[in-house]
Amino acid sequence: MKHTIQHYTNGQLSNKYDNIADEAPLEIRIEGRSIAVLMRQPNRQEDLELVMGFMLTEGVIDDRSDVHAIQHIVDPRERRFNTVDVILSSGVPAKRRHRADRELFASSSCGICGKATQERIWQHFPPLEKFISLPDPKWICNLPQVLRKQQQHFSQTGGTHAAALFQMDGEVLIVREDVGRHNAVDKVIGWAIQEDIDPSQMVLMVSGRVAFEIAQKTLAFKIPMIAAIGAPSSLAVDFCIGSRIQLVGFIKNDGFNLYTV
Amino acid sequence: MKHTIQHYTNGQLSNKYDNIADEAPLEIRIEGRSIAVLMRQPNRQEDLELVMGFMLTEGVIDDRSDVHAIQHIVDPRERRFNTVDVILSSGVPAKRRHRADRELFASSSCGICGKATQERIWQHFPPLEKFISLPDPKWICNLPQVLRKQQQHFSQTGGTHAAALFQMDGEVLIVREDVGRHNAVDKVIGWAIQEDIDPSQMVLMVSGRVAFEIAQKTLAFKIPMIAAIGAPSSLAVDFCIGSRIQLVGFIKNDGFNLYTV
Repeated sequence: MKHTIQHYTNGQLSNKYDNIADEAPLEIRIEGRSIAVLMRQPNRQEDLELVMGFMLTEGVIDDRSDVHAIQHIVDPRERRFNTVDVILSSGVPAKRRHRADRELFASSSCGICGKATQERIWQHFPPLEKFISLPDPKWICNLPQVLRKQQQHFSQTGGTHAAALFQMDGEVLIVREDVGRHNAVDKVIGWAIQEDIDPSQMVLMVSGRVAFEIAQKTLAFKIPMIAAIGAPSSLAVDFCIGSRIQLVGFIKNDGFNLYTV
Repeated sequence: MKHTIQHYTNGQLSNKYDNIADEAPLEIRIEGRSIAVLMRQPNRQEDLELVMGFMLTEGVIDDRSDVHAIQHIVDPRERRFNTVDVILSSGVPAKRRHRADRELFASSSCGICGKATQERIWQHFPPLEKFISLPDPKWICNLPQVLRKQQQHFSQTGGTHAAALFQMDGEVLIVREDVGRHNAVDKVIGWAIQEDIDPSQMVLMVSGRVAFEIAQKTLAFKIPMIAAIGAPSSLAVDFCIGSRIQLVGFIKNDGFNLYTV
């Protein structure tokens, strides 16, 4: 969004135009029932990716074959595209439709301890079989530069996070940006579901920090490695170790930390 | 949390100890009913601030007199302090107890457009009467340095956000850190409620970006100005203009942007 602002510098205030990251609510409905509202950066194509990724990481769908139809619902008064409705395939068990209605993982963790939360998630998303071998450290150190060059919205607004999928030791496949870092991850995963990407040789890269929910989403799509520019939280480290997901953070030109040791 | 990691630098991997930001789920109960689970950085005192701030910004309480008692519930098997129970005062209307149960603002926005979401919030939290005059620009440019010196957890872990309350044109009153930036804001607000601080001459400072929910929390406690190191979103700018909250972002040593023009 272009917006008039006042910029202060060297003791002077002056008017200028500035690019500001767009944010608007997206309501997700499954067969007409509202299951969640996310604040996201609107984009017609990316909205559908976001909803696909969100449904997978929340345990509503297993893959794209569980989705019969997905489309925007347009309010005729507004002509805004801020609601997406999904029709699930006939084979999807009723208990998963029910989960969509009542038990989103993100808001239903158990407060007693992180351990109980993790075990509940592993019941639905089992840990990976084994840790993958770490890619070439020089390749890892180069990831932030590759990502940064593709952060188009960040360059314009300074107000967005990015997530990306890289082929292990290889090229970047997709970069997505959003005002919410969870959304950027869900968009990348939703894109990969739609493109039928095999996650087993992929690395999920994030422009910020890794807290628990990012790690949970990574396991949900069975991606074997997270590479982050920022720091992880203690629960993310615990969860990645238990899920056998390699976790690398604080990546700089000349170094990084490996947390899964 | 102290954790063994491997650090890669100059072509060498070496073991070292690292400080990692703690993250654990906190379950919030009102009179025994679970209303939310937040992922937060645990701290016995700050947990109570977080719950007080969260209840105010979600519209469950108006001030501290609405709270009869607040305490941790300890699971005897675990000896962990990850659940807080609140008993509301007898005068609190039943409809607000009901809101706590079913209608948290953060998860109940309307997906049709940002405008409807804002109007719904203004029904509960009316806009401020008028914009305050902007403080001395030089004072604003100095805020990040003052905040940075007090970000103790960030210095140790690099993994936490900070929020602070400053007296307009004056001193910092409180700094709180958390793995979640909304939590840092709720802790600051919760502290201010407990200390009976008048918000009308305060500035809320945040170490990161300002999206819609941060602006909504600011209005809920009637703080007339937000100062951010990062960028705001379009919806945060709209909402601050409509709420008559001054919004300053991208603060550096020699300049900043004023978005509420």
